[in-house]
Amino acid sequence: MKAAILGATGLVGQRFVQLLNDHPWFEITALTGSERTAGMRYGEAVTWRIETGLKEEIAELTVQPSNPKEIDADIVFSALPADQAIGIEEAFAKAGYAVVSNASAHRMAPDVPLMNPEVNFSHLKLIDEQRHTRNWDGALVTNPNCTTAVLSLSLKPICDRYGVKSVVMSSMQAASGAGYPGVASLDIINNVIPFIKEEEEKVQRETRKILGNVGQSAEFNVSASCHRVPVIDGHTEAVFVQTAKPAKPEQVADCMAEFSAEPQELKLPSAPERPIIVRSEQDRPQPRFDRNEGRGMSIVVGRVRRDPVLDGVKYVALGHNMVRGAAGCAILIAESMKSQGYI
Amino acid sequence: MKAAILGATGLVGQRFVQLLNDHPWFEITALTGSERTAGMRYGEAVTWRIETGLKEEIAELTVQPSNPKEIDADIVFSALPADQAIGIEEAFAKAGYAVVSNASAHRMAPDVPLMNPEVNFSHLKLIDEQRHTRNWDGALVTNPNCTTAVLSLSLKPICDRYGVKSVVMSSMQAASGAGYPGVASLDIINNVIPFIKEEEEKVQRETRKILGNVGQSAEFNVSASCHRVPVIDGHTEAVFVQTAKPAKPEQVADCMAEFSAEPQELKLPSAPERPIIVRSEQDRPQPRFDRNEGRGMSIVVGRVRRDPVLDGVKYVALGHNMVRGAAGCAILIAESMKSQGYI
Amino acid sequence: MKAAILGATGLVGQRFVQLLNDHPWFEITALTGSERTAGMRYGEAVTWRIETGLKEEIAELTVQPSNPKEIDADIVFSALPADQAIGIEEAFAKAGYAVVSNASAHRMAPDVPLMNPEVNFSHLKLIDEQRHTRNWDGALVTNPNCTTAVLSLSLKPICDRYGVKSVVMSSMQAASGAGYPGVASLDIINNVIPFIKEEEEKVQRETRKILGNVGQSAEFNVSASCHRVPVIDGHTEAVFVQTAKPAKPEQVADCMAEFSAEPQELKLPSAPERPIIVRSEQDRPQPRFDRNEGRGMSIVVGRVRRDPVLDGVKYVALGHNMVRGAAGCAILIAESMKSQGYI
Amino acid sequence: MKAAILGATGLVGQRFVQLLNDHPWFEITALTGSERTAGMRYGEAVTWRIETGLKEEIAELTVQPSNPKEIDADIVFSALPADQAIGIEEAFAKAGYAVVSNASAHRMAPDVPLMNPEVNFSHLKLIDEQRHTRNWDGALVTNPNCTTAVLSLSLKPICDRYGVKSVVMSSMQAASGAGYPGVASLDIINNVIPFIKEEEEKVQRETRKILGNVGQSAEFNVSASCHRVPVIDGHTEAVFVQTAKPAKPEQVADCMAEFSAEPQELKLPSAPERPIIVRSEQDRPQPRFDRNEGRGMSIVVGRVRRDPVLDGVKYVALGHNMVRGAAGCAILIAESMKSQGYI
Repeated sequence: MKAAILGATGLVGQRFVQLLNDHPWFEITALTGSERTAGMRYGEAVTWRIETGLKEEIAELTVQPSNPKEIDADIVFSALPADQAIGIEEAFAKAGYAVVSNASAHRMAPDVPLMNPEVNFSHLKLIDEQRHTRNWDGALVTNPNCTTAVLSLSLKPICDRYGVKSVVMSSMQAASGAGYPGVASLDIINNVIPFIKEEEEKVQRETRKILGNVGQSAEFNVSASCHRVPVIDGHTEAVFVQTAKPAKPEQVADCMAEFSAEPQELKLPSAPERPIIVRSEQDRPQPRFDRNEGRGMSIVVGRVRRDPVLDGVKYVALGHNMVRGAAGCAILIAESMKSQGYI
Repeated sequence: MKAAILGATGLVGQRFVQLLNDHPWFEITALTGSERTAGMRYGEAVTWRIETGLKEEIAELTVQPSNPKEIDADIVFSALPADQAIGIEEAFAKAGYAVVSNASAHRMAPDVPLMNPEVNFSHLKLIDEQRHTRNWDGALVTNPNCTTAVLSLSLKPICDRYGVKSVVMSSMQAASGAGYPGVASLDIINNVIPFIKEEEEKVQRETRKILGNVGQSAEFNVSASCHRVPVIDGHTEAVFVQTAKPAKPEQVADCMAEFSAEPQELKLPSAPERPIIVRSEQDRPQPRFDRNEGRGMSIVVGRVRRDPVLDGVKYVALGHNMVRGAAGCAILIAESMKSQGYI
Repeated sequence: MKAAILGATGLVGQRFVQLLNDHPWFEITALTGSERTAGMRYGEAVTWRIETGLKEEIAELTVQPSNPKEIDADIVFSALPADQAIGIEEAFAKAGYAVVSNASAHRMAPDVPLMNPEVNFSHLKLIDEQRHTRNWDGALVTNPNCTTAVLSLSLKPICDRYGVKSVVMSSMQAASGAGYPGVASLDIINNVIPFIKEEEEKVQRETRKILGNVGQSAEFNVSASCHRVPVIDGHTEAVFVQTAKPAKPEQVADCMAEFSAEPQELKLPSAPERPIIVRSEQDRPQPRFDRNEGRGMSIVVGRVRRDPVLDGVKYVALGHNMVRGAAGCAILIAESMKSQGYI
Repeated sequence: MKAAILGATGLVGQRFVQLLNDHPWFEITALTGSERTAGMRYGEAVTWRIETGLKEEIAELTVQPSNPKEIDADIVFSALPADQAIGIEEAFAKAGYAVVSNASAHRMAPDVPLMNPEVNFSHLKLIDEQRHTRNWDGALVTNPNCTTAVLSLSLKPICDRYGVKSVVMSSMQAASGAGYPGVASLDIINNVIPFIKEEEEKVQRETRKILGNVGQSAEFNVSASCHRVPVIDGHTEAVFVQTAKPAKPEQVADCMAEFSAEPQELKLPSAPERPIIVRSEQDRPQPRFDRNEGRGMSIVVGRVRRDPVLDGVKYVALGHNMVRGAAGCAILIAESMKSQGYI
C-alpha cells in the first residue's frame, strides 16, 4: 500500500519516514512539506535528527505541497502542526483518504477515534459513524499525545482487572517531544522546565477518552503535572493509581506483564510482542536503556509498589515518545484499520 | 562562636565550609575527616566541587579526626555519612557539644528534634527532654533530608490555613544530592534514574514528623516517588495536596507568599527574607534560575493550580538541596538554638 | 554617564544590562529592541536567561527603537546582530555617540579599533583618525568575538616576552555564544557540533589585528578549529604556540601570571585584578568552576606544557564568553575610552 | 572458535560481550572477573551500561577468575585494567593462548604488535619474533588507546599518499572512555575537563608506533591536547596535519574516502565496508549521529580544509571509542590473526 506523510520534514515526520522505511505493508510514495520546502529534495529540506540515518532513496524524493489532488497514496500519515492539521486533514479525508494523524486538532471530536490500539481497538468502529455523519469515504483517526500513549497503555490492564478510580501522574518528558529546533539548549541543560503548554489538559482528557467507551469518557479523574528534563528521547512517568478493587503491587505487575491485546493476536507488523515490559530492578525503567524496547513500541514499567495515599499502587512507566507516543502508534493504528477493512 | 564541621571533605561538608565562611556568629575552628585525610591540609584533602571557590585560609586548616577530645568548638555541624554519624554524633553530644546533623541516623528518634526552622521552631524545646533523658549537657538536633526540607516548608502555610489531608509528591532531584563522586555520568547524561535509595521512605515519614506536634507525627499520609535528573543543584518537586478546608489556588499562592515565621522575626542571619517565593510565570520554578533565591534558603513555588483528583491544589516547588536542604538548614537550626539559649 | 544598550533583549544585551546594573560610572537610560518589542516593558520583551535575575527597575524601562534621535545617552553599547549593526551603529556614531559594539560588522575596518583593553590599549588612538576620516564627532569601537577575546589575552604576555611565530587553537565553546534560542537541545545534548559559522575565520584574522600594530596585523599565522560542546557559559581553548625565542613552560606560566596592563594601572572599574589567572592543578581550567574568576573578566590558564610539534608551548585557556568575550569587554573598552578622554 | 573475555564486567568487557554475541567466528565460552565477582552469575556481577541490553544466555554464565588453567578458549580478549594486565596477560600467553588486549600495559613493548588492522596489518608478523624471543606458543597483541585508534586510521591514507611531517590533535572525548563508574556527573555536566591522565603521552607515542615500520616508530612528531566533554560515546578529534608533499583538502578527502586495506580485502567479519567515511556537510561528524557508522568500526571525517599554520590540512575525525577504539578493534585484530594463521 502506498503511504503519504504530511509534514514530513518535522521531527515526527522523520520518525514516520524511519519507521515506514522497511515496513512490510506500506511504502512511502509521497512526502509533503511547507511552502518553503515544497519542490526541494527531501534530503535537502529536512534537518534529519534521527540517529539511524536517512536512506538515500528517501532523500531523493521531492517534497510536495499538502494537497490531496497531488498525492498518490492509499494511507496518509499526518505529522502536521495542530493549526494546519484542522483544514488539511479534513480535506484529505473528504477526498477519500484514510488519514491517521498525530496532531491534536481532531482528537477530542466525538466522531473521531482516538486510538492506542492495544487499549481501545474497538473504538475503530467509530469510523463507520464518522463516514456516515461527515458523508465521506475517507477516514480521520488520531493517536494520543505522547504522554497519554504511555499512560493509557500502562493503565489498561489495571482498568480491566481492578478498575481505576483516580490517577495522579507526574512526567519527566524528553526534549524531542517539542519538535525541532524545539527546546533551546540554554533552557534545558542543567535544568528542568516544569511546564509544557497544554500537555496536562491533553493528558487529563485524552486518557479518559481512550479508556472509556465509544462516546463516553471513563469516569475516573486524572491529575497531571508535566515537566521537561534534559533527555533526548523517552518520557518517564510517575503514576499513582487508586484502584476500585484492592490490588496488591505484585498482582498489578503481573497483570501488566501478561497484558496482550488485538494487535498482538492479529500479529500486526508494528505490534510489540509484549506491550508492557515489567522490570523488577529497583532502578528501572530508564530512558537511555529502555526506550527502544519492542523497537520503541513497548512501554517499560518498574517500581510497582503500594501507594499509601490513594490506597492503590504507584509505579514508573517509560515509553519512546516518538515511536509509541507518535509515529509508531499511528502506524499501528493504520495496521489495525487495514486489518479491519477500513483501508 | 567556634564551629566544627564533622565530615568536612564531603559535598555537604563543603557547603558548611562555604556558608560558614563569612558567617556573622560562627567561625570555623575545626574540620574533621576520615582516617585517610586526618592530618592533611584541608585544601589537599578535599575535592572542592563548589563553584565559588575555596578560601585560602580555610584550605590551610589541618583535617582532624572526629574525636570530641581533640576538637575546640561551641557548635558542631555534622556532615557525616549515616553509618558513622550514629556513634560519633552521640559521643560529641555526650561530651557536651551542641550537634546539628545533616545525617539521617537520628532523625526519627523520639527525643531528637527534626527541624526545619520556619516550619517547626517550637520543636526545639524537645532538647530539654533530650538532655534529661540522655543525661547529657550537649544536644543532638537534625535537619530533614533535602527533599523533605523543600516539601515541608511549602506545606506549612497550607497546613496552618487550610489543613492538609494527604500529599502526593514526585521529585526531580539534582545529582549533588548523592554526594561526590556520587552519580556516575554514564548513569545520568541523557537519562533519568527513577530511584533514590530510601528517599521515599524518608520523605514520607520525616514530612509528617516535622509538620506534626512534638512527639506526634501529623496525621496525613504522604506518597512520594523520587527520581534523579541531569541537574547539578536544585530539587524540583511536583506536589499534589488534598486540603481539609476548600482552598482556591490563588488563596494557597497568597498564603505561601505571605508566609513568615520565627527565624524571620528573630532576623536570624541565615533566615531568608521570604521563605517561600511564589512566581506567577507559567514555566517557573526552574533549578538553574531559581535555586539561589534567598542565598539558597528560599524555596520557589510556581504553577499553583487546582488538583482535580485530590480535590485540592497542585504546584511545583524548588529548593537548593545543598543549602535549604542540607548545610544552610543546619546552620539556621544552630542560629535558632542560639537564639533560644540552647547553645 | 548615561548608557544606552542597542539590541538589549538578546543574550549579549542581557549581559550588558546585568553588568551595567551596579556600574559606578554608567547608568542605563535606554534599551532598544526590534520593531516587535519596541514599546513593550523590557521585563516583558526579554526572555531573561541570566541566572542572577533581572532587577525590577530595569524591567520597568520601555524598549525603544534603535534610533539615534530618540535616545538619551553619553555612551552606546551595541549588542545588535551583525546585519543590523552596520547601518545603525554608523548612524549613532554619525549622530555624535560613542558606540562600543559587540557586533562583528565593523571589526576589520581599518579605521575602527578592535579592542581587548589589556592587549592593545594603544589602539584607542585610532579613534582620532576615524573621526577625521569619517568626519564625525562620535566614535565606533568594537570588541573581538568571544573566542578571540580569550585567545588574544592569553597570547599577549607571550608575544611581549618571547614573540609568537604561529598559533594553533582548538575551541570547545559554550552554547550561550550562539545567543537565544540559539543551539537546539536536540543538537547538543550528548553531542559535539564541530562547526560554528564564520568563527574560525574571525579568530584567525581578529587575533592578528589585536596583537598587531595600528594599521598592521601581526605577522604570525593562526589556525583555528571551533567546536560547540554542551556547556552553558565559558569557552575552553586548547592553544599550541610556536614562540620566536625559546620559552620554557614555567617561564610562560610566570609571564602570564604576572601580566598586567593599562586597565589595571588605571584601576578601571571592570578591570580584573589579574587578567590571567594561572592554575597549577593538572585538570584546570574548567568552565563550571573557573568562568566567573574576576567577575568573568579574568581568563584562567592551565596545563602550560612543552609542545613537541611547534617547538613552543601548549596550554588550555578559559574565559567567560559573555563577559570577557562580549559585554564585559565592551564595558572595559568604554571605561578605557573615558579614561583617555574619548567620551 | 572459543573466546574468553578477561575483565568482562567492566565497560570494555561489556562491549566485548556485546560484539561477540553474534560473531560468526567466535563464541563466548568464558568470562572472568575480579575476586569479588568470581563465582557470580555474569548478569548479577555486571552493571550493564550498553543500551542494546544483555542477552539472557550470557547473563547466565558464571564469572571465573582470570586463571589460564581454568579457562577453555582458543582466543583471549583482555579488558583488564593496566596494572592487572601485565602479569595476567603474560601468564595467558605463556600458557599458549592468543591474547588480544585493550590494556595499555604491553603496547609499547618492542616485540608486541600494536595493531589497528587497516593501518598496520603487516605488523602482525612481529608475533613470530615475539614467540621466538619469549619462547612461548601463545601471542600477545594489543590495540591502541581509543583516541589513537581514530587518529591513526585517519592519518594512514595521508601518510601513504602525501607523507606526514607533524600532527597536532585536540580531542573532545566521551565519558565512557573512563570506564564505569568513571567520570562523576558533578565533574562533567555543564563542564569540560581539560585533562585525561596519561592520554596525551599515549596518543603521541602510540600513533608513531602504529604508523611506523616494525621496530621503528614513524619520524613525525605528534602533539596532543586531550579533553573530556559531556558525551556518552564517541571521541571527536580536531586534527592539524603538516604533509610532506603539497596536498589539497579535496585530495586528502578523496584519499580518505577511497581508503581500504587488508581487512576489507579479506572481508573480515568486523571490517567495515569503508574504514573512513568522509562527510561533506559543514557540521559533521557529530558523536550522536555518526558514532555507529559501520557498526561503530568506521570513523567519520569532515571539514577537511587547508591549515594555514602547518601548511597542510586540518579536519575533524570521529570514532566510537568503545568499538573502533577498544573492543571492536581488538576483535578485528583477532580476525586478522586468524586470517594469517596466528590462531
